[in-house]
Order: sequence, then structure tokens, then C-alpha cells
Amino acid sequence: MEMKIGVIKGDGIGPEIVDEAMKVLDQTAKVYGHSISYTQLLMGGASIDVNGVPLTEETLQLAKDSDAVLMGSIGGDAKTSPWYQLEPSKRPEAGLLQLRKGLNLFANLRPAVLYDELKGACPLKKEIADRGFDLMIMRELTGGLYFGKRSTEEIDGVLTAKDELTYNENEIRRIAKRGFDIAMKRNKKVTSVDKANVLDSSRLWRKVVEEVAKDYPEVTLEHMLVDNCAMQLVKDPAQFDVVLTENMFGDILSDEASMVTGSIGMLASASLNDTKFGLYEPSGGSAPDIAGKGIANPIATILSAAMMLRFSFDLDKEADAIENAVAAVLKDGYRTIDIMSEGKEQIGTAQMGDKICEYI
Amino acid sequence: MEMKIGVIKGDGIGPEIVDEAMKVLDQTAKVYGHSISYTQLLMGGASIDVNGVPLTEETLQLAKDSDAVLMGSIGGDAKTSPWYQLEPSKRPEAGLLQLRKGLNLFANLRPAVLYDELKGACPLKKEIADRGFDLMIMRELTGGLYFGKRSTEEIDGVLTAKDELTYNENEIRRIAKRGFDIAMKRNKKVTSVDKANVLDSSRLWRKVVEEVAKDYPEVTLEHMLVDNCAMQLVKDPAQFDVVLTENMFGDILSDEASMVTGSIGMLASASLNDTKFGLYEPSGGSAPDIAGKGIANPIATILSAAMMLRFSFDLDKEADAIENAVAAVLKDGYRTIDIMSEGKEQIGTAQMGDKICEYI
Ligand SMILES: CC(C)[C@H](C(=O)O)[C@@H](O)C(=O)O
Ligand SMILES: CC(C)[C@H](C(=O)O)[C@@H](O)C(=O)O
Repeated sequence: MEMKIGVIKGDGIGPEIVDEAMKVLDQTAKVYGHSISYTQLLMGGASIDVNGVPLTEETLQLAKDSDAVLMGSIGGDAKTSPWYQLEPSKRPEAGLLQLRKGLNLFANLRPAVLYDELKGACPLKKEIADRGFDLMIMRELTGGLYFGKRSTEEIDGVLTAKDELTYNENEIRRIAKRGFDIAMKRNKKVTSVDKANVLDSSRLWRKVVEEVAKDYPEVTLEHMLVDNCAMQLVKDPAQFDVVLTENMFGDILSDEASMVTGSIGMLASASLNDTKFGLYEPSGGSAPDIAGKGIANPIATILSAAMMLRFSFDLDKEADAIENAVAAVLKDGYRTIDIMSEGKEQIGTAQMGDKICEYI
Repeated sequence: MEMKIGVIKGDGIGPEIVDEAMKVLDQTAKVYGHSISYTQLLMGGASIDVNGVPLTEETLQLAKDSDAVLMGSIGGDAKTSPWYQLEPSKRPEAGLLQLRKGLNLFANLRPAVLYDELKGACPLKKEIADRGFDLMIMRELTGGLYFGKRSTEEIDGVLTAKDELTYNENEIRRIAKRGFDIAMKRNKKVTSVDKANVLDSSRLWRKVVEEVAKDYPEVTLEHMLVDNCAMQLVKDPAQFDVVLTENMFGDILSDEASMVTGSIGMLASASLNDTKFGLYEPSGGSAPDIAGKGIANPIATILSAAMMLRFSFDLDKEADAIENAVAAVLKDGYRTIDIMSEGKEQIGTAQMGDKICEYI
């Protein structure tokens, strides 16, 4: 297969971890007889430095022309980086939001998995960690508070700010379908999270999710209030399979879930639209404090590349090969510093990429 | 002192736990020479059953006429209770929101404390739990998405729901001041939580909080994004002193923080306006599944009564007496079932109230 992959190395540790993912992709292509062409794209801080804005029209078009985009991490240290002297709409993160909207990436999949080998890193106590968990957050990514109208104005001399949270039934239906589709390939349980005891948007959410559920009689649907979900993720993450929720709740809950695994450096993510196209990136941030040191964990990005092969190219075997290679390297005891524990061997970013390649 | 206390026993375990708090208040009044008169008020499900609506004008007025209100818990099992056949604006929770707004209770204080005696119940691993934590969430309670305009309408044949998130600078200033005031009595650190990389309301929030901070040079102010805060509460709750945030974020984060303690049955809360008046209630829910069994933990409600003495009546000595009595009873090894652990003695709701009275 010929794959046209756009690459956004991004800021902070982005370039280092993306390099390793490309290394692993190349090795996989070689072994399985595919060919990949990469187009480097600038976004976020790296784009501000060159183009003055976090995302240009041209870059957006180049992303659209790719089959899929692999991304590192965006943004810098808000306290010290000059990017944060710019007004909000010109900062690195704004580029990310424009990219999501511009590519219509409404479905954000964020797996949160407690790896057997890494239970020691889990912040939860042994009784809970021992049960293990493997959940998938399905976050709506192009609606809600993130993309509603907003304004800040003086009303009778008083500064007043407003953000609109809007969802229509079509937006809810398409993400709900994705949630149920993915549940069908997993443990057939969907937990739809909302705040239906307060918000109109959540009541519509619940209604549409229930309608969609009718087409998936095998899937168990449960509704949960967002405040309760924030509790349950700590108390008993094993209860979840697919967590389906809107943009802002998904932002909060997916980060909480990723922390509950104790190994953010292991967590991939995919943002999909209604074609085969997808944007794949690690769940963690750009970690400017360790950038350039060669110690960042590339596994989240490598697993994101595996998701890319699976979702955008239907190359399940190849995706499995990468995931198994990661598991094998962990089993052999190799660790980057963020997941290091006693008796294991600490290695750097590039060595981790090399080790994973060896198993493919 | 003469105290006029409104009492909303509420639904589920509400009546049982409020009875114990009244018992402890009466004992405290007796020992310290105060007199208390109680006015019973109906709210939530109990009010729907009698009045058809969750809050009547008359009840609201009676609450206003009290010096303070002690409340149990509101609501029932959404799956089985007839209250949830009613439209949202007529359900038990709607009464709670009307009460908050009607009494202008803009400042919601939710302590999350890991009790030394109860570290075993904490869902976090030992290394984290051993550091202990004692944080106070200061949640804005009468603004934001909870009280903005909302609508559900068909736009070009497509059902569209909208909720408005609005804050003006005055609303932010008054809650921020409360946050800094309380930090001055604690460890002098405020973590203001927002989503300023996306929301206009959060950017205004941040600006006003920074202005207010200038009047409190001794207090260290830090800003944190809400998604990061959801992670940090799991990773390292000991880093927090006062967490200052808006209504919806506060709802989510305070529940997460309470679960992180592992003992929701111990957590009090206070909702205050700009007078001495306050509404005091346990952080946990109405637990309809165990209602009437005499096993619910009354301590959260008893500690809420202590907060009432402290905030609404300036009776610090009396509040201390209740808090110390609770600590002593725990030390003696008495536990309700929710916080039971090996080698301790399990007792019921009323016995717990009695034990606490013995120490006052
Ligand atoms: C950078 C920020 C705008 C973004 C978001 O809130 O969506 C990030 O937190 C994420 O979750 O990808
Ligand atoms: C019952 C509900 C409306 C309420 C809220 O969301 O404020 C509750 O969750 C709380 O935190 O007191």
C-alpha cells in the first residue's frame, strides 16, 4: 500500500517522539511491503516561529491532501514562552482547534489502558489497580463550548464574558454512532456522560444517544452524570468500556483517566472525521521541560501510529505488530524514565524506538 | 446565643443523618449555653410529594427568615422514582438550584480532607495517601452554565440545544475574594482553575482573579487548566490548599476530590451569600438504596453543622468541640459501614450521633 502521511512534529518533545514513530512506521512498511511518503507540516509554536500564525491555510490544505496526519505535541511553557504573549487566537493551541475544525475531526478516541507491566506506576491502590482496566473515551471534538459563539463586552460598565454550548441532534448522532460502533468491537458497553440534570444540551444528548442505542441492541447503554463519572474513574475504572461524551467533559475526563493509568507516556489518541482520514497524536503534552534531552517516552506516539494503520489504512496486522512489539519491549524490562521502576533497564527515546523496531 | 435554624431533612438518607446532626447541635447548645429553634422546611422530592413542586415561595421565604439552614440530601433514584417522570424543571434537583439562586448562595465551600484514621479507605496508593491532604474547593454556585439562558429548538428541522456560560467581573470578584479570604486562614495558596486556553469566560475569570490577588500579597496564586487539575487531584492532591473555580468545573472537581479522600460520608459543605447566612449540607448524595436502614454515615452532616456554627454564628469554640468529638470517636475505633475497616467497631447512624454527643 502507498501511504501519504502528513507529519506535524510540533513543539517541545514533539520532534523527538515523532521521529521514533516514523522509524517504527518505516520498519513496519519495510517488513510488510508498504511504501510511505511523508509531508512535513508546521503547526502550533513551530508555525508561529516561521509563519507568525499557528496554522496557515496552506498547511490545512496539505493536511487535507494527506491520507492521515501523525502529530507530536503542541504548545510550550505558558509562563515563559513568547507564544503566550500573543492574543489567545494566535497561540499554539488555537492552531490545534482550527485544525480539528478545518478537518472536521469530530470523533476523538482516547484509550486509557492500565498495562499489566506498569501497574506499579498507577496512582490507585493495589486492590483497584489489580483489577486492571482498559477503557476508551469517545469525545466529541468539534462542538460544544469549544466552538460556540463567545464574547467579552461591557454591559452597563461591567465586563461580561459569554461562551455558548451548542449541540444539534446531528452532531450528537454521529458521535454516538461512533461510540456504539467501537463498543461493538470491544466489550459492548457504552457509558454516556452528560449533565442532564442541569443542561439542555445534555438532555438532547441523552435523548439522541437513546435513539442511536436502539440500532445496537447488543450494546448495554448506561447514562452517568459528569460529576459522578469523575468519581467513578477513581473509584472503579474497571467498570467502563466506552465512555461517550461531549467536548469539554471529554477533555476533563480523558485527562483524568489518563492520569489514573499512571503512564500518560503510553497513551495514544485518534481524531477522526467521516472519511478514513485521521489525526493521530499522543495524549500527553509537549513537556517543554524535558525537550531535547532524549529522555521522552515515544511509545504514546508509536501507538498512535499503530492506531493510524488500523483506522485510516485498515492495516490491522501491521497495527497488531506494533502493539505487540511495544508489549514485548516492556516485557523485556526496557523503560523510559517516566515509567521506570526498580529492576528495569532505563533507556532513552531513540533506544526505545530502536528496541520496538527490533520486534517488528 | 439564640439560633433560628431552618432544617431541610430532604430525601433518601437525609432525614436520618439530619436527625443526628440536630442531636449533636442540641448537645452543643446545652453544654455551651445556647438556644436553638428549628423550622422544618420541605424541599426536593419531599416537597414534590406534598406540594407538587420541589420548592415553594413560602419555603424559600422561611429559609430567608432563618439564620442558617441545615440540609440533608436531595433527590432519589432517577431510574425508579416517580419524581423523574416530571419535566426537568420540576424535579428535586431543580428545587436545589432555585434555593441556591433564591438565597444568593454564590460561594460553595467543599473541604476534601484525608483523615489520618481513614487513610485505608483512600483509593490512592500508599505513597500518595501517606502525604495526606486537606484542601478546600471554593466553587462559584450561582452563575455559569447552571443559570445561563438555555433553549432547545428546531433550526431548519434540526433539534438544537443551547446553554449559555456567562460570568461578569463582579460575580468573579466576589467569589475570588472569598477564596483568598479563606486561603488567609489556611495555607495561603490559591489554585484558580479555568479553561483560559479556550473560553472567554475563563479569560475574564483569570484577569479578575489576578486583580483580586493584588490585595492579598501573602497568598500565592497559581492558575491551572481544568483538565490538568483533574489529573493533579489524582496524582498529588497534597499540592492544593484552596481550589477556586466556576460552577461546572467546581461540580466536577469537588466530586472528584471527595472521592479521592475515599470517605465521602465524612465531607461537609457550606454555601454562603454575602451575609452571615449559609446553607450547610453533606457533600454526598441521598443514597436511596440504603435509606431507612439506619446505617448511613451522619458525620458529613454533623461536620456541616459545625461549619454552620463557625461561619454563620462565629461560634468557633463550639465548632471545634464538634470536630474534635468526631476525631475522638474515630480514634476510639467506631465506624459506620461505609468507612469500616478491620479491627474497628461497626455502629449505626444513631449510635454514631450518640457517641459524638458523649464527647461534647
Ligand atoms: C490544548 C487544548 C486546547 C486541548 C483541548 O482542550 O482540547 C487539549 O487539552 C486536549 O485535550 O487536546
Ligand atoms: C444535584 C445537582 C444539580 C448538584 C450540582 O450539580 O450542583 C450536585 O451535583 C451538587 O454538586 O450539589
